[in-house]
Amino acid sequence: MIPRYSREKMASIWSPESKFRIWFEIEAHACDAQAELGVIPKEAAKAVWERGAFEVDRIDAIEAEVKHDVIAFLTNLAEHVGPEARFVHQGMTSSDVLDTCLAVQLTRAADILVEDVDALLAALERRAFEHKNTVKVGRSHGIHAEPTTFGVTLASHHVEFQRCRERLVIARKEIATCAISGAVGTFANIDPFVEEHVAKALGLVAEPVSTQVIPRDRHAMFFAVLGVVASSVERLATEIRHLQRTEVREAEEFFSEKQKGSSAMPHKRNPVLTENLTGLARLVRMTVVPAMENVALWHERDISHSSVERMIGPDATVTLDFALARLTGVIDKLIVYPETMQANLDKLGGLIHSQRVMLALTQAGVSREDAYRLVQRNAMPVWLEGKDFRTLLGADSEVTAALSAEQLDGLFDLGYHTKHVDTIFRRVFGRTE
Amino acid sequence: MIPRYSREKMASIWSPESKFRIWFEIEAHACDAQAELGVIPKEAAKAVWERGAFEVDRIDAIEAEVKHDVIAFLTNLAEHVGPEARFVHQGMTSSDVLDTCLAVQLTRAADILVEDVDALLAALERRAFEHKNTVKVGRSHGIHAEPTTFGVTLASHHVEFQRCRERLVIARKEIATCAISGAVGTFANIDPFVEEHVAKALGLVAEPVSTQVIPRDRHAMFFAVLGVVASSVERLATEIRHLQRTEVREAEEFFSEKQKGSSAMPHKRNPVLTENLTGLARLVRMTVVPAMENVALWHERDISHSSVERMIGPDATVTLDFALARLTGVIDKLIVYPETMQANLDKLGGLIHSQRVMLALTQAGVSREDAYRLVQRNAMPVWLEGKDFRTLLGADSEVTAALSAEQLDGLFDLGYHTKHVDTIFRRVFGRTE
Amino acid sequence: MIPRYSREKMASIWSPESKFRIWFEIEAHACDAQAELGVIPKEAAKAVWERGAFEVDRIDAIEAEVKHDVIAFLTNLAEHVGPEARFVHQGMTSSDVLDTCLAVQLTRAADILVEDVDALLAALERRAFEHKNTVKVGRSHGIHAEPTTFGVTLASHHVEFQRCRERLVIARKEIATCAISGAVGTFANIDPFVEEHVAKALGLVAEPVSTQVIPRDRHAMFFAVLGVVASSVERLATEIRHLQRTEVREAEEFFSEKQKGSSAMPHKRNPVLTENLTGLARLVRMTVVPAMENVALWHERDISHSSVERMIGPDATVTLDFALARLTGVIDKLIVYPETMQANLDKLGGLIHSQRVMLALTQAGVSREDAYRLVQRNAMPVWLEGKDFRTLLGADSEVTAALSAEQLDGLFDLGYHTKHVDTIFRRVFGRTE
Amino acid sequence: MIPRYSREKMASIWSPESKFRIWFEIEAHACDAQAELGVIPKEAAKAVWERGAFEVDRIDAIEAEVKHDVIAFLTNLAEHVGPEARFVHQGMTSSDVLDTCLAVQLTRAADILVEDVDALLAALERRAFEHKNTVKVGRSHGIHAEPTTFGVTLASHHVEFQRCRERLVIARKEIATCAISGAVGTFANIDPFVEEHVAKALGLVAEPVSTQVIPRDRHAMFFAVLGVVASSVERLATEIRHLQRTEVREAEEFFSEKQKGSSAMPHKRNPVLTENLTGLARLVRMTVVPAMENVALWHERDISHSSVERMIGPDATVTLDFALARLTGVIDKLIVYPETMQANLDKLGGLIHSQRVMLALTQAGVSREDAYRLVQRNAMPVWLEGKDFRTLLGADSEVTAALSAEQLDGLFDLGYHTKHVDTIFRRVFGRTE
Repeated sequence: MIPRYSREKMASIWSPESKFRIWFEIEAHACDAQAELGVIPKEAAKAVWERGAFEVDRIDAIEAEVKHDVIAFLTNLAEHVGPEARFVHQGMTSSDVLDTCLAVQLTRAADILVEDVDALLAALERRAFEHKNTVKVGRSHGIHAEPTTFGVTLASHHVEFQRCRERLVIARKEIATCAISGAVGTFANIDPFVEEHVAKALGLVAEPVSTQVIPRDRHAMFFAVLGVVASSVERLATEIRHLQRTEVREAEEFFSEKQKGSSAMPHKRNPVLTENLTGLARLVRMTVVPAMENVALWHERDISHSSVERMIGPDATVTLDFALARLTGVIDKLIVYPETMQANLDKLGGLIHSQRVMLALTQAGVSREDAYRLVQRNAMPVWLEGKDFRTLLGADSEVTAALSAEQLDGLFDLGYHTKHVDTIFRRVFGRTE
Repeated sequence: MIPRYSREKMASIWSPESKFRIWFEIEAHACDAQAELGVIPKEAAKAVWERGAFEVDRIDAIEAEVKHDVIAFLTNLAEHVGPEARFVHQGMTSSDVLDTCLAVQLTRAADILVEDVDALLAALERRAFEHKNTVKVGRSHGIHAEPTTFGVTLASHHVEFQRCRERLVIARKEIATCAISGAVGTFANIDPFVEEHVAKALGLVAEPVSTQVIPRDRHAMFFAVLGVVASSVERLATEIRHLQRTEVREAEEFFSEKQKGSSAMPHKRNPVLTENLTGLARLVRMTVVPAMENVALWHERDISHSSVERMIGPDATVTLDFALARLTGVIDKLIVYPETMQANLDKLGGLIHSQRVMLALTQAGVSREDAYRLVQRNAMPVWLEGKDFRTLLGADSEVTAALSAEQLDGLFDLGYHTKHVDTIFRRVFGRTE
Repeated sequence: MIPRYSREKMASIWSPESKFRIWFEIEAHACDAQAELGVIPKEAAKAVWERGAFEVDRIDAIEAEVKHDVIAFLTNLAEHVGPEARFVHQGMTSSDVLDTCLAVQLTRAADILVEDVDALLAALERRAFEHKNTVKVGRSHGIHAEPTTFGVTLASHHVEFQRCRERLVIARKEIATCAISGAVGTFANIDPFVEEHVAKALGLVAEPVSTQVIPRDRHAMFFAVLGVVASSVERLATEIRHLQRTEVREAEEFFSEKQKGSSAMPHKRNPVLTENLTGLARLVRMTVVPAMENVALWHERDISHSSVERMIGPDATVTLDFALARLTGVIDKLIVYPETMQANLDKLGGLIHSQRVMLALTQAGVSREDAYRLVQRNAMPVWLEGKDFRTLLGADSEVTAALSAEQLDGLFDLGYHTKHVDTIFRRVFGRTE
Repeated sequence: MIPRYSREKMASIWSPESKFRIWFEIEAHACDAQAELGVIPKEAAKAVWERGAFEVDRIDAIEAEVKHDVIAFLTNLAEHVGPEARFVHQGMTSSDVLDTCLAVQLTRAADILVEDVDALLAALERRAFEHKNTVKVGRSHGIHAEPTTFGVTLASHHVEFQRCRERLVIARKEIATCAISGAVGTFANIDPFVEEHVAKALGLVAEPVSTQVIPRDRHAMFFAVLGVVASSVERLATEIRHLQRTEVREAEEFFSEKQKGSSAMPHKRNPVLTENLTGLARLVRMTVVPAMENVALWHERDISHSSVERMIGPDATVTLDFALARLTGVIDKLIVYPETMQANLDKLGGLIHSQRVMLALTQAGVSREDAYRLVQRNAMPVWLEGKDFRTLLGADSEVTAALSAEQLDGLFDLGYHTKHVDTIFRRVFGRTE
């Protein structure tokens, strides 16, 4: 997590203040439950809520000595609460606090990520409808294939991010659990009621079996989902990068008045935001494997996962939040060049209609193999020498034996390729306009 | 995928025969739909089903020449079907066949993996109930902490694999889609009805936007889930490895009569199956990142994902299937030593009750800090010099000032730690016996 | 390792026959040393070499029963050698055989990979000199920057693969060690002389401390190097993919007479080999992390690494060998279009000279900031409206105040950009022609 | 990079001040060379050195506007240098500054890492000699195998870190290159002499072909090496974690007076440092794959690598530095329990001598298969029922038929296993005392 690629709202989830505030709430809610059970005096629980406070610096100072963060926090808390502090954390273990806190942080992070995706979906939808009928060439292997529309391209990303949204919702649910089960998770010193109470108060559910820690398969799944979402960011970013290439230039990232593309070459307008997104995707993705390596803790728990999560928890969520927001901005302000799209489409001298010609030949009785051969022999001079496909076909007697000039002309109609755009839009957006 | 770590049923999904059979079905179902639409003669569709056949060797031979696998298949198919073969594959592109086939293969694989997890769950449940009350020490950081039961340990893995099962079901749904949308996915040469028809016939749903290929975020998610499941396999395998250590030896993998543990040391009985599972987990997990790297295909598609999937498709599913089955066998036949569990539990001279003593001191009015100090000063001689914790406490006047001998005795009761085992079992299995 | 992406020579290193042959040699050489030491009879060593033999099927059958591969091999070997077989493997442990065998296999694999890189270097060198002066535009961010030559591009890959070659040589050295140190590596039952003897006979060096296994940091390093080489393969493959894009088309993979680019679109010539190489790079790279996870074996050894290496050993080496050979073929037969390179270079109306103009302005006394501003304001209309850069500059009075028309013309000379090509070639190839 | 796992010296390499200072030096040295060539006035170069300065805040403010960090820096620099500033950065491009700076930072980081390893080697050597003859059981698969010494264990890690040191030296060399080659790396606007001059001044060598950026295969190799070193850290950390397990307890991390092991269980002394190191190893390792993904930049360069390196550059080096220092501390202060080592060794009732008995039987004329069977049948009751191995052997008539009681006694001598410790120490340390 570095400031350059951070946004305040997500970053603040991971501040020491936020963390200790959540710790405090966990402890205080637990006191409420313990008081309700009669394990501790009701006044103690009240005192915690009323006088409870902490100072980050003071906690750090204590931790430097006792080398244990939760004990440091409790010591500082006791300095504020007074004698009743001895009722705090009764029967609990550090992991109860740490793991439940992480669950709260990750669910909050997931909420923001879902909002981010919603904003991206809105931008994609707006631009998709704007360019629903903007014809451009579809490319497989980087090679002109057949016509499509830019709206369809954006729709394909929209529906992919719809899936990403669903995955984030699932990921959120995966990690929204609370553990207040005490040492090795047996509830020996704390009633399961406390767990239920705290879970409810924090919007979580009780972890079925926590063995002192919340099992890390949940977190592995969470980070895996973030890695998939990042990969979808990369796909859209890569598309923009390709479209902005000098030779293609069908779209461009917005370029502000005062921006400088290159210190050496003043003419340049580079797709730096989407290139950056490609890199950010790698950063989010790299957290997936260590999150999986964290699963196999020893026996009831070890602490090897902790340093990993201190790093990847903030890093993956903050970076992905930033990336999604940046991508939304790119889509929102993307400069699109429909004329260039049309010009590029025309570049191959009609070759993009080759399949349709082949199919027409087949339907006119030519064998599939022969049809392929006929089309290929007329396509190659177009490809290699820049000739015109329609003209060559008209001059090929084997072709004209099967198809009239009028039929041939009809095969070169663009509308043929866009006739199902409505179908696609209906599938994605549930509407066609 | 290597025979050593393969099981027939899963491996056969990936055989050339299976693949071409699925290809054939896709093409034949598509012909049915095309015939229903009147695009091709009903007789043609019928001919495909009736005379359709293929030979793997022949396809390979053709592919060596044309360097295109689907064309090779279609050519071979045509040799069987005859002239009507020209109606096959009309308006379709290779990806329609390849991607839909992969979807069928991965859903079948997912079905087997779900069955595998079910078998593992059954084994875990049986052994968990068998050892529901088998007391053993719980360990955090590899250090004795407090008592738990072996049944609880197995229950924690059971509920983890319940989650893995749910994830596999989600993963299956992610990749159970069909694409028959033609070049660049615009349905220019094929009606969306064909896709709907084939999808239904194969138990899939139509891919909303396929841009010639089924989007690879789906597959990334699929392999990510497999990576998480593999990590859960690793956690359980690691637990067994630890329990089988010479010094611990609370459980052992079954060791058959004729098995040899070591070529050099005839006395050895090694946890080789679970060590092997640790390695297999790494193999499954390594497929996650390339699957994510596959997402960002260029424009409407490129073919970079193909070689990756040819390898990781079989590798990840076959290896995970094998691992789950092996793990089920390990759990099923695991030799458990309850006496050793009890003996290990007794090793720390009563230290495992230290928390309870501390809590009792607190409740008797001692401050938390003092209670911690009192317990720690009596615990250290036990830890370092092997003394008895209960005896030391009875001789500490600050302790006896707060707790009577009778109260102290009561704090050393094992039943205290297992009183919520039923709660945990109810959460996991919905029953307590 | 799948046949599609395998070459015979590399694949054969990993055949059961090769493996058992190496095992045999290790055992037989060890017998020689033991006989020299007087530990076993000289006749026994002789008998092993003379009558020693094995059958893969028979070994498999025995292993199915004893569940231990080395014991199975020794049993089969004894069936051939007779009574003297009891002197075989004396004081050794399975790992001595397995790890030394793997060392032999990986060194052989490294040798082939070095040969592969040499072939690639030769192809790159030939084509680099062929196109040393073929001017093309250099692109940063996919945007036209300044002129370079295609030879320089190839030279940059050449020197990168020179580095890869050096890395492979280092990697080979890393894993070229032999361990014959017995159980837990203490030489208790076998003299270190045996290790020295076998190492020498097999072209290896003795592993300083083997704790029963050869330490896996060596293998981690080996696979890490393969991952880097694969990434360099990806970089060159990506370059070709970009050059072959329809809009760029400065180069194309060779397309054979009978090849079919697309089953649906007969006109297509796709960069499928280089796309495939991109995927293969991912496959090699994915082996790096598990190889690193293998390092932390428990105590003197566990067997978790074994399954990983059974898979990634063949997979990574066979795939990289195939990839390097394929890439060499692509470079060797690459179709280059110098005219298109020139045409693309001319596309930006002279903007590629923008930096030189800016520098000239600076040297004529204009401040850096003003020079940047002057150039940018003349560049933008070229970029956005397709105007001519030279013309606009000539019409800008602030520019002409600093630079005469003659000076301006001189700034648009291509030779200016290629004047150091010789320097670069000398650095890479040690020669300029 | 988070403060908790950072040390000042390494972290400071990555501070904005350090970075801009290096940028300044690159620019100033380049001016010297340009002045020597006569391209810019000598006074200009002098002015840069004399008046050159920068303020991090000011640079940030400018960058917020121009969105280009190098331009922002140059603008701020110009504010200090005055009119001569127009001669700064002549013919250079941002990458010349950024990439050369990164090379300086990474070489400095490598120097610190080498120092770190040296400190670790010293600690390992000291403790290895201290425990050269401290006998303990060697364990394969976590199961007692045969005796070794703790000194040998530490020696095996020593020689592994010797290799790591060599790898770090190689990695340093990999990235110690300088690029001052201008746009697309053709030296069009800057003489190669400048590059040579700056390289020399900064202790680097000139990058043979830089295509505007220093090729990223170098950085991939660098991070790969860090990943291997981290894995070696993990191996040693895992060893300590195992030795500290309650049931093993042959060694313990130092535990300071005021330290608290658990908030709930005052008796606990946990191997938290080495568990933490296991996690840190994962963090370093996760940077390897993105570094490899960075290699395939598009054409002459794109900027996708930049965000990745901004994160992993500091993260990997700072974390590994911290980990190595922490590990050195752990080894330095490790509490070793030789008595427990001996006690554990004795636990298996003499089974650790099983191989030796088998070999003696073989040498007494028993076939290998029979010897194995004889030993295994006497070993199993020891293993399963805790009987004494020597006693059982003495009562087995098939055994005593081959070996006398005296011979049997001789086979149970520990010195037999340690006789080659000197050989091993000589290999590792070049000395035996």
